[in-house]
Amino acid sequence: MARRKKVYEGKAKILYEGPEPGTLVQYFKDDATAFNAEKRATIEGKGVLNNRLSEFFMSGLNAIGVPTHFIRRLNMREQLIRAVEIIPLEVVVRNVAAGSISKRLGIEEGTALPRPIVEFYFKNDELGDPLVSEEHIIAFGWATQQDLDDMVSLALRVNDFLSGLMLGVGIKLVDFKIEIGRIWDGDYMRLIVADEISPDSCRLWDIETGKKLDKDVFRRDLGNLADAYTEVARRLGVMPGPGTGVTKPTLIN
Amino acid sequence: MARRKKVYEGKAKILYEGPEPGTLVQYFKDDATAFNAEKRATIEGKGVLNNRLSEFFMSGLNAIGVPTHFIRRLNMREQLIRAVEIIPLEVVVRNVAAGSISKRLGIEEGTALPRPIVEFYFKNDELGDPLVSEEHIIAFGWATQQDLDDMVSLALRVNDFLSGLMLGVGIKLVDFKIEIGRIWDGDYMRLIVADEISPDSCRLWDIETGKKLDKDVFRRDLGNLADAYTEVARRLGVMPGPGTGVTKPTLIN
Ligand SMILES: Nc1ncnc2c1ncn2[C@@H]1O[C@H](COP(=O)(O)OP(=O)(O)OP(=O)(O)O)[C@@H](O)[C@H]1O
Ligand SMILES: Nc1ncnc2c1ncn2[C@@H]1O[C@H](COP(=O)(O)OP(=O)(O)OP(=O)(O)O)[C@@H](O)[C@H]1O
Ligand SMILES: [Mg+2]
Ligand SMILES: [Mg+2]
Repeated sequence: MARRKKVYEGKAKILYEGPEPGTLVQYFKDDATAFNAEKRATIEGKGVLNNRLSEFFMSGLNAIGVPTHFIRRLNMREQLIRAVEIIPLEVVVRNVAAGSISKRLGIEEGTALPRPIVEFYFKNDELGDPLVSEEHIIAFGWATQQDLDDMVSLALRVNDFLSGLMLGVGIKLVDFKIEIGRIWDGDYMRLIVADEISPDSCRLWDIETGKKLDKDVFRRDLGNLADAYTEVARRLGVMPGPGTGVTKPTLIN
Repeated sequence: MARRKKVYEGKAKILYEGPEPGTLVQYFKDDATAFNAEKRATIEGKGVLNNRLSEFFMSGLNAIGVPTHFIRRLNMREQLIRAVEIIPLEVVVRNVAAGSISKRLGIEEGTALPRPIVEFYFKNDELGDPLVSEEHIIAFGWATQQDLDDMVSLALRVNDFLSGLMLGVGIKLVDFKIEIGRIWDGDYMRLIVADEISPDSCRLWDIETGKKLDKDVFRRDLGNLADAYTEVARRLGVMPGPGTGVTKPTLIN
């Protein structure tokens, strides 16, 4: 492959310059981190699974008119995406209490929330991605009120779509995190879903057994993470076949 | 004094049943606590000063049409207030970064904020009064959107009034916390400022020297707390005179 410029290397993905202006290539690594990177591991096959799953979710969203950065998958670990200006906020939608909201607000894990709750966290690893309110976001200029309204709408549409999709395969969408970015068509700015949607960024519980099929398997040492992600992919009919390198996830790990 | 029923004893104040329905007597103790009551002390004269200062601020607010629970001062340590149903939120307004926002968002103490920021904290000592956003408040039914809009308006009016008042006596109002409660006039519900407004619940810095004249003196061991509060009272012309028990605060402590 021709030499290409690395734009950014993060904990889970690498961004390279894309073939055309306004595009990037997103490479999914096998690295897993948790608790602000205090816990780390390499999970063979995770990058391939997340590349596939993020493609599946994002292209599904594009199809129902929720704009995302996804253009097309290039190979096992890479996809072509639209370059955006990332808004420095993690947008979290919660349907059921789990993780930080359970701890912060004293709500037992597994409690259904009275309605989906949209939260914003300031994307800043040094500060531990603190929860912020719309007041902070607007006062510090991270986004405008209009942006926030659009972000909430996007996030709730993603929640509706993913909730339905998961329900269809016997999985409860507990919560998820997305990132949102700005693109310009001439002078006209709009917001689109960026980064990734995968079991790294969702909580997914089997509806029957409550079994966790997401990154909590890694965070809480509950078993083999690639197996859990493969189960999600299999149920969704995007089970990687021969030649993808994740035919037998239990054996690779 | 006739025996009367204690309604609630908190860290800094005691509430007794009032002489008429819908009223309470608020007694200001000398107890000081910080860091969720991990640090404690008794500061002789503090209760007297806070009773006076809360009277001064609340009656000033009443006079400009910002409704508060304050009816009248009864004696050195007690005031008559309207009983409210407290909304379980601490409402914080910040003009300058200090304390928790500096830590959470990495903003150096003393940095002027781009605009006043209104924050809500869930009043729950066990959880450490966590910051919450309007989403949480509405989802869990702690207040309605209408309540929140009214609370922000009240809080900003309090901020305008106190900022002006303090500026007039050479003090910068850095931030403050209020509590807000519901009262009913027949079927008609309205929100009024409750609890207390005092150097216990504000950050007050001398404009010239930056000297702290608020509870941070206690939190950070910066000197004599009663002296600091007496300085605020003196500048505001509410210096307790003879018979109040705090004529010579430096000697009592
Ligand atoms: N379409 C896009 N255009 C530009 N940047 C993007 C796009 N999608 C995702 N990104 C950014 O690419 C990076 C992806 O890398 P990765 O997720 O591994 O980072 P990270 O270590 O998690 O750090 P971060 O906290 O920034 O996400 C993120 O910074 C993300 O915000
Ligand atoms: N007008 C009012 N009507 C009813 N309750 C009030 C009123 N004003 C204040 N309160 C409540 O009275 C209590 C005052 O006591 P204090 O401030 O010492 O409590 P605390 O130990 O700080 O605990 P808290 O965290 O509840 O404030 C608080 O719980 C406050 O919410
Ligand atoms: Mg990331
Ligand atoms: Mg209190």
